[in-house]
Amino acid sequence: MTKQTLSHSELIAAAPEQVRSAIRHGTYNGHTAGLAAGKLQCNLAILPERFALDFLRFCQRNPKPCPVVGVSDSGNPNLPTLGRDIDIRTDVSQYRVFKDGVFIEEVADITALWADDLVTVALGCSFTFENALLRNNIPVRHIETGRNVPMYRSNIDLMPAGPFAGKMVVTMRPIPQAQVEQARKISARYPHAHGAPIGFGDPSTIGIDDLALPDWGDAVEVKEGEVPVYWACGVTPQNVLLDAQLPLCITHSPGHMLIADVAEDAETTILPPQ
Amino acid sequence: MTKQTLSHSELIAAAPEQVRSAIRHGTYNGHTAGLAAGKLQCNLAILPERFALDFLRFCQRNPKPCPVVGVSDSGNPNLPTLGRDIDIRTDVSQYRVFKDGVFIEEVADITALWADDLVTVALGCSFTFENALLRNNIPVRHIETGRNVPMYRSNIDLMPAGPFAGKMVVTMRPIPQAQVEQARKISARYPHAHGAPIGFGDPSTIGIDDLALPDWGDAVEVKEGEVPVYWACGVTPQNVLLDAQLPLCITHSPGHMLIADVAEDAETTILPPQ
Repeated sequence: MTKQTLSHSELIAAAPEQVRSAIRHGTYNGHTAGLAAGKLQCNLAILPERFALDFLRFCQRNPKPCPVVGVSDSGNPNLPTLGRDIDIRTDVSQYRVFKDGVFIEEVADITALWADDLVTVALGCSFTFENALLRNNIPVRHIETGRNVPMYRSNIDLMPAGPFAGKMVVTMRPIPQAQVEQARKISARYPHAHGAPIGFGDPSTIGIDDLALPDWGDAVEVKEGEVPVYWACGVTPQNVLLDAQLPLCITHSPGHMLIADVAEDAETTILPPQ
Repeated sequence: MTKQTLSHSELIAAAPEQVRSAIRHGTYNGHTAGLAAGKLQCNLAILPERFALDFLRFCQRNPKPCPVVGVSDSGNPNLPTLGRDIDIRTDVSQYRVFKDGVFIEEVADITALWADDLVTVALGCSFTFENALLRNNIPVRHIETGRNVPMYRSNIDLMPAGPFAGKMVVTMRPIPQAQVEQARKISARYPHAHGAPIGFGDPSTIGIDDLALPDWGDAVEVKEGEVPVYWACGVTPQNVLLDAQLPLCITHSPGHMLIADVAEDAETTILPPQ
C-alpha cells in the first residue's frame, strides 16, 4: 500500500486495514476513537509465554474487565482471527513498555522489542457498547463534553490466577434514570466489551469515596435525575499486569487501540476463514 | 454430607451440590440431562499443563464448538468459579481416559490418575440452549423421541492452535420453518453454550452426505415443513484432543456432565465471591 495521509473524516469512514496501514506507515499516530466506524477496537497486553496461561486463566475468571477477543501464537506478531494483515509490532499508534512493573517508555513501534516468546492478548473495549448507547440515543457524558471517561479503583476483588490479582477498575457514566434499564440491556449484548454494568447508584458501595476525584481520566457531572452507572474497565488488566512485575510487558497507550476487521456487533470476534 | 439415595425426580429438583454429592458418594452414576434444573452443565477436558495454553488458544479461536466456562489452576482439582465444593476427581458420574490418543477405560473416579500438572477446562454444552428452546415451545426432536442428538463430522475447518486442529462436529435439530428464526435468536443468547446455529438447510453445503447416517448419536426424522438446523457441538474439542494424541487426556463420558452452581442463563459463568 502506498503511503498516504488520510484526513480524520476519511479515517472514520476507512476500512480497518486502511487505518492500520496509515498507522503502520507513520502517517497517523493519534487516538483511534471513532476510526473505522463499526469495527471492534481492542486493548492490548503483550507478555512472555511463560505467563500467558495464568493470564488467560485470569481473564477467563474475570470476563467483565478482561474480555479476551484474540490470542496470538507465541512469537507470532499476527492475529489472523482479528484481521487479515495485522502485525502487532507496528499496527498500533502508541505502545507503553514496562519492565519489572516499571514504565520504561512510550513508542510508536515495538519491532525492536519483539521476541520469540511474546504472546499478544487482545481484549474488548468500551468503545463498542458506547457506540451502541449513542445509536440508541442514550447520552454518554464524557463524549458529549470531549473528556476522557472517569475511572476509579473499586473495592471489588478480582478472582486471582497465578501472579495476577487485585481490585477491579470501573468506569462511570451518568445515565438518565429512565434509561438505566435500557443502557443495561444494550451493553449486556456485548459480552466482548465488558457487558452489562457491574452496578449503579451510591459509589461508596463499591469503595469509591468521591466521584469528583477519579483515579484516571476526567471527572464528569452527574446531573439531577441521572444515576451514576459503573462498568468494568479495561484498565483493570493493565494494573494487574503491572502489579505482577513481569520482566517485560507491552500495552497500547490509552485511546490508541488495535482496530480489528471484526464487526463490533458480530456474534464472535473470530473472522470466518477466507 | 450423609450418604443418601435421591430419586430421579428429587435429582431434577435438587441443588447442584446435592447432585454432585450423590455422584461423589456413588449413589448416582447415570446421565445428568435435566438434573439440578436451571444450572449450567459442562463438557470436560483434563490435560497436562504443557498443552493447556495451546488448548485455551484453540478454544478462544473456535468459541462456538469450544466455549470455555471454567479453567482450573494446574494440579488443583477444584473449580471455585463454577461451584463452591467441586472436586473434579469425583464429581462427574463417568469419565473417559485416553493415553496417546487411544481410549483406555471408562471410570467413575479419577483420583488415582490425578497429577500435579493436570489442568481442567470446562466447556459449555447444548443442554443450556435446548432447555431454552423447550421453554419457548420449540420442539427438540431427539428429546421428544428419547434419543441421543444426531452428530456429524462437517467439512468446516477449525482455526488451529499448536497441536490442536480438525473439522467442526455439528448437531442437527429439525425445527419447524416458522420457528427457525426464533430458535436462532434464543440460542444466540447463550454464547457459553454454542450460541446461534452455524447453518441450516441442505446438509451437503457443510459436507454432510446423509442426515440419516450420523457419525455419533441417533438419526431423527426431519418432517414436512421442518428445516434441519446445525449447531456447533461439544464433541469437536474431544475429537481434536484425541487427534493431538496427548500422553494423557480425560473427558466426561457423553451425557455425564459436570453440574455447576452457576445458573445456565447467568451473564457470565463466574460465581460471585461469597
